[in-house]
Parts: sequence; C-alpha cells; structure tokens
Amino acid sequence: MAFTDIATRTYNHGFRLDPIVRSLLDTDFYKLLMLQLIRDVHPDVSATFSLINRSSSVKLAEIIDEDELRAQLDHARTLRFSNKELIWLAGNSFYGKTQIFRPEFIAWLADFQLPEYELSKADGQYELHFHGPWTHTTMWEVPALAIISELRSRAAMEAHGRFALDVLYARAKAKLWEKVIALSKLPDLKLSDFGTRRRHSFLWQRWCVEALKEGLGDRFIGTSNTLLAMDADLEAIGTNAHELPMVEAALAKSDAELAKAPYRVLEHWQSQYSGNLLIVLPDAFGTAAFLRNAPDWVADWTGFRPDSAPPIEAGEEIIDWWKQKGRDPKEKLLIFSDGMDVDTIEEVYRHFHGRVRMSFGWGTNLTNDFRGCDPDGGHALDPISLVCKVTEANGRPAVKLSDNPEKATGDRGEIERYLQVFGAAGRTAAPVDV
Amino acid sequence: MAFTDIATRTYNHGFRLDPIVRSLLDTDFYKLLMLQLIRDVHPDVSATFSLINRSSSVKLAEIIDEDELRAQLDHARTLRFSNKELIWLAGNSFYGKTQIFRPEFIAWLADFQLPEYELSKADGQYELHFHGPWTHTTMWEVPALAIISELRSRAAMEAHGRFALDVLYARAKAKLWEKVIALSKLPDLKLSDFGTRRRHSFLWQRWCVEALKEGLGDRFIGTSNTLLAMDADLEAIGTNAHELPMVEAALAKSDAELAKAPYRVLEHWQSQYSGNLLIVLPDAFGTAAFLRNAPDWVADWTGFRPDSAPPIEAGEEIIDWWKQKGRDPKEKLLIFSDGMDVDTIEEVYRHFHGRVRMSFGWGTNLTNDFRGCDPDGGHALDPISLVCKVTEANGRPAVKLSDNPEKATGDRGEIERYLQVFGAAGRTAAPVDV
Repeated sequence: MAFTDIATRTYNHGFRLDPIVRSLLDTDFYKLLMLQLIRDVHPDVSATFSLINRSSSVKLAEIIDEDELRAQLDHARTLRFSNKELIWLAGNSFYGKTQIFRPEFIAWLADFQLPEYELSKADGQYELHFHGPWTHTTMWEVPALAIISELRSRAAMEAHGRFALDVLYARAKAKLWEKVIALSKLPDLKLSDFGTRRRHSFLWQRWCVEALKEGLGDRFIGTSNTLLAMDADLEAIGTNAHELPMVEAALAKSDAELAKAPYRVLEHWQSQYSGNLLIVLPDAFGTAAFLRNAPDWVADWTGFRPDSAPPIEAGEEIIDWWKQKGRDPKEKLLIFSDGMDVDTIEEVYRHFHGRVRMSFGWGTNLTNDFRGCDPDGGHALDPISLVCKVTEANGRPAVKLSDNPEKATGDRGEIERYLQVFGAAGRTAAPVDV
Repeated sequence: MAFTDIATRTYNHGFRLDPIVRSLLDTDFYKLLMLQLIRDVHPDVSATFSLINRSSSVKLAEIIDEDELRAQLDHARTLRFSNKELIWLAGNSFYGKTQIFRPEFIAWLADFQLPEYELSKADGQYELHFHGPWTHTTMWEVPALAIISELRSRAAMEAHGRFALDVLYARAKAKLWEKVIALSKLPDLKLSDFGTRRRHSFLWQRWCVEALKEGLGDRFIGTSNTLLAMDADLEAIGTNAHELPMVEAALAKSDAELAKAPYRVLEHWQSQYSGNLLIVLPDAFGTAAFLRNAPDWVADWTGFRPDSAPPIEAGEEIIDWWKQKGRDPKEKLLIFSDGMDVDTIEEVYRHFHGRVRMSFGWGTNLTNDFRGCDPDGGHALDPISLVCKVTEANGRPAVKLSDNPEKATGDRGEIERYLQVFGAAGRTAAPVDV
C-alpha cells in the first residue's frame, strides 16, 4: 500500500495561490543595510523603482498572466516581518559584528509593509512602477524581480507532465553539480550566492545553496538571501547597490554637487558601517571617472566591487589605483559579481590569484541556468536580463551610466549631462545576457 | 509551515525491513511461461539453481551483510500470489492471446511459495543454492538476483547523505534520458525492458520503465517484469531461457539423446505456445551446432534470440540459415538482448534495418548504469555480472557451453563431453561485463 498524506494532497489540489515570496526576509541582505542608511540620511526622499526588461524580445506580458502577477504582488504586500525574523536581525552577528541594525530601526521594521504598485501592459511588456518614499519602494526591487522570474518559469513548465519535470530538474541538478565540482578545484575560492532576484524559483535557489554548502565547504561563504541565511545558518552577504549613488546624484542641485555625489554616498556609508562592509561600487557613473576624482580616504576602504566592466580589466585598473595610493593590493578585496559563471570565475581567479584578495558573487548562472535542461527543447527557461531600477528621486530623473553603455539606465538627456560631468573614459559596450 | 505526514515519517524511522521483492510477480514473465511447461512436462524433476558471480573481484560477502540478505530472502519466501495477480494472469491477454495460462496452472500458483535456500560464505563470496523440485527452484532465479543486486546498491549508498543521493539520482536520470533521446531517433526501433534481475533497485527500474514509456512511445513495446507490466498496463515480454535445454540435456541418457535435447525442448514448447512466443534461444550448446543439426520445422518458428555471440555475426549466421531453409528473413524476428547498450543497439539496428524484423531486450545497461554518477566517485555502483543458473537436474550436472566460453557454466568434465557431442565451431571468447 502506498501512503498518502490526504490533507497535504487535498491542500495541493485546492490552494488558490502558491506564494513565491513568503517572507520579507526573502530579499538581498544589502537592501536592509541600505534601508537603515536611507532612513537615517534620506527619510523624506521619494523614489520610483521601475521594472526594465533588457531582454526585450521576451514578451513578458504575453507569457505571464496578469491576474497571477497581481495575486503574487498583492500577497507580498500582506507580508510583515515576523517576531522570529526581527529577533534574528537584532541578535545575529553580521560580518563579524553584533547589533549592526540599531534597535529603533528594528522597531520600525516591525510595521513595515511593501507599498502599492502600478501595473499596466505596453507592447507585450509589463510596465511595473513603485512610487512612494524611498524607505519603502526600495524594498520592492528583489521580491518584484523574483516574482516575475518565477512566474515566467512556471509558465514555461505549465504544459509539462510530472515525468518531464522530473527529467528537467534531474538535468538541472546534474548540470549544477558539474559546476560545483569544477569550482571545488579552486583551493582559495570564496564564493557566495547572489541569485535571489533572477532565480528559477525559491525552492530551486534553496537547492542551489545546499549544493554549494555540500560541494564547496569553506569555499562557500554565504548567501545574499537573508531568509536562506537565517534558515540555513549561513552568513548573509552584501553591502550596497547603485541606487545609493543614483539617488544622491539625482538630488544634486548643480553639476559640481553631481560630481561629488559618489563620494558623499561613501561618507554616509562609513558613518554607519565599517570593516568588511566598506566595499566601493565604483561604476555607477564610470569607474575611470570615479577613481580619477576619488579622495585619498577611499583607498582605506576594504575593497571594490566592479560590476559592469570586463572583470580582469576592471580589477587591474583598481589594483593600479591602490598602488598609486600607496596601498598593498594583497590586503585589499575585489568582489566579482557581474554575470559570472564557472568559466569566468576560473579565469578571474587564476588571473588575480596571489595578487589580491578575491570573492565572487554568483547570481543568475547559479540559480537560473536551465539552458539545455528542458526535455521539450526550446529556450523558455533560459534566463533573461531583468532589472528593477530607481528611475526618479524627488521628481528628478535618476541615471546610471555604468562602464557598459548597454547597462545604462535613465533619461537620454540626463545621460548626456552626466557624461559631460563624469566623462566617457573606459566605457566599453558588451552584451548583457543575464 | 511545512506539512509532514507524521505516520509515514514514524513508519520510515521504525520499519525493520524494507523489502526488495514485494510480489511474486516481480519476476521475468518468461519464468511463468517456462514454469507452466515445466509443470506439464517435467513435474517430478529436481533441479538446483546456484548463484554465480562472474565479477569475481567484487567480494559480495564483504559488501552485503549476511543477516540482511537472509532477511530479504526470508521475506520473499513469505510472499504468495494475490487474488488480484492471479485474476490478472488468467484474464489478461499476452502476446495477443487470452488464457495463455491454463486454469489449473493458475489454481496451482495460488499455493506457490518459494522453497528453502542454502546460504554460506567462501572466499569473500556467497554460496547460494536452491535445491528442490524444478517447479519451485526455477522461481528463485530472478528474485534472488534482484535482492543481491539491490542490497549491493544499498551498501554502496549507505554512507551517503541525503544531498549526495539527490545528486546521484539526478545524474543517473539525466544519463538515462540522454540514452532515451538517442534511441528515440531510430524510427523503427522495438525495445523492451529486460533489466529486472540486475537492476539497481525496484524503484529505479520503475523509473526507467516510465522513462522509456515517456520518451520512446510506440518504440517501447513492454517489460519483462510481470509486476510492472500489470501495474503500468504494459505488454509482458519474454519467452524462454537456457534452463530448458540445460535440464533437458542433463536428463539425456546417452550422447545421442543429448544431441537431440535442444530440439526436444522446442517440441515441448510448441505444444504449449504459438505465434510470437515461438522464439528460439540457439546458443545453449553453441549456435553453429544448433543450426547445423536443426530439423527443418525449426525454420517455421517466428524468430531467434542470439544471446552470447557477437550480435551482428550471430544475426548474419541465422539469416543465412533461414535463407538456406528457403525462408524470407524479412518475415522473421531477431531479438537482441545480450549486454546491449545504446551504442550496440544503434549499430545492430543500422546493420540489419530493412533486412529482418528486430527487437531489443535492454537489461543491465538500462536499469543499472550508475557509472560516473556517484558524487564520491568510485565504482561501488557499477554493474557486475551476476547470474543464477541451474547446476544440476535429478542429480546430474547441468552445463551451458554458450557461444562465448566466458559464459560457459558447469562441471569441467561435462563441458568436455558436451564439446565432443556439439563441437566447438563458432565459439569465441569475449569479456562479460554485465
């Protein structure tokens, strides 16, 4: 006789919604670090976040049902931080430090709710915007992306029978494990999961994290997903993102203020955090411009996270700059997290090994690489390049130049103005796949 | 909240035995066809079946715990055919015919029980013998092999954690699915599962059968496993095995009778069965000798199953013989089932396509190919060549010569005598892997 849990089976047949995001902690850790800073420095700034599908040939509005999308977004708005989650945020140590989150911030989180969203369709794409206080809209970025990414996976798998799904996940597991084996051969590797936002699904991300834990041991240093970090007793990883310099720049009242915005962000950051959390994200308006004009004290920070230039060129540029500033690169850290996969991780690791400390944030190619895994063939499960970016702050357009013009976002005219202020040195176009 | 079926979980923690063989139908279909004949023609013959591990470097007695082996064999002895099973055997049609099993045989099966076994250890191997009436000992062959095969798998996986097992099965599934895709490209393929006796496990065989069903459609014609045929509504496949000519030969009172034994078996068989069940297994004492001395009426049978010579050579030899006898090979059937895998199936299919009807019985390389799948590496899950053969009948030694001397079994002196009677023409040694 086969045993069936009738209650579970009945629930599975009858549930109205299988939620994709079940906790406000199911987000990148750096969102919480940034949120604490935003509340402190810019509590009254309003900011709009908007969905941008860089893979424009993939017509998301034709793939994902609007009612399902609304149901998932609505469900996320019902979530609150639970007591267990708040106690963990308050009591756990992050990056070796206790009480990184101040008590009054934790108390404020207790009432936090995701704000309203604005959803419409145009040209086969969804227009999805989040308007409101920056302290609230910022928190939509990761769950919104995770919801759309997983709804797209579900749509691609809808017609598959149980067996085809079994083969699909068997292949994906076998494929990921080959990657883990390859990475396990790099003795000094430090790698973390950065794949929440563009994951195939929550359960698949959890499996990926388990695979890294099993296969990489100490080489796996943690996950950017705060919920998985809590549940699996891993380090929560992450520092800061482009939204900080983008909003700071948007708020600048003159070109002179604009030019200083990237460094003002770092001043705010180091007033709140220290040690390994002092990681510079230099490329919002071009790495070359950032380094050229950076004050000396920026070289005291622990490391850099180059995020849009080719990783070896970017690393060499930063190492040269540290040397110019009289710092020893061997004591510094470079974090590579821009569309990495096993081949690029191996290449960058071998290139810099012994010359600088390194760690890797592995995102979409970790948690959403189903290329070649679908028994029916096709590319409906291939990852796409979907982002959710701040587009305006206090009514002023927000802009990212990036080292790769393909990753630039924002109003054309503003981009021109920013290019005049920061220059275009070192910017090189490269395709953006994930 | 996660839902757990507490009763199932408690049972899983507390069970004393996880049975490998749970039904007397979990055996090859041809055992039942042969059993009906044996009861009819040789009801009083006693026959001993014995385990033979041709992979002698694998020390089974050092791998498999004796108590566990005894518990599994004892459990198999508690099994009876259930009413549902007997009704299905009586009411189902096999090879397009209803009532292939006579009512009095079905009635006799209702009381059937596997007989006692004799188990000991020597030189790191198990000595496992089944003594008694041929009508009972014959039924031990498949369950005994399946039990040892699965206990060996379990031992190899014992130290693995849940995650390693997940990777192991993901890889095995991905590997098998690649094979299924390759086979699905042969448009006129006819293939059946022959993998019960040397399967990795019962559940894995079931998955393999499901994979063939999903991936091959009509090219998958059925399974030799009677239980899986019943449960999955598939054709039960199989006809006869070497034990019939081996016992017939052992009972021969003179060299002249011995020489005729292979054909006497066919006379018995065609008195019971007809149509597509008339498949000659020609190699018990060498295919060349068999064909040289075969009466003309043997060419009226539907087909041949060459089982130990290289398949293309064996097929050509049989086709030539049909032509000599004035038969059209295009109306005849060749069944290939000796250690086949995708490469050999493709080769044989392409070689004979359009010249003769063909079908393939895919055994160990279907249901037990975990080579390269163990996350810890090693070869503990690689298949081995384990058989359970009739070794004596009515106190006289039973012998198989085979087309491949490596597959010969029986007493050395008797083998010499058989070689004098049948000759050694066409026998070529080849390694036996599975």
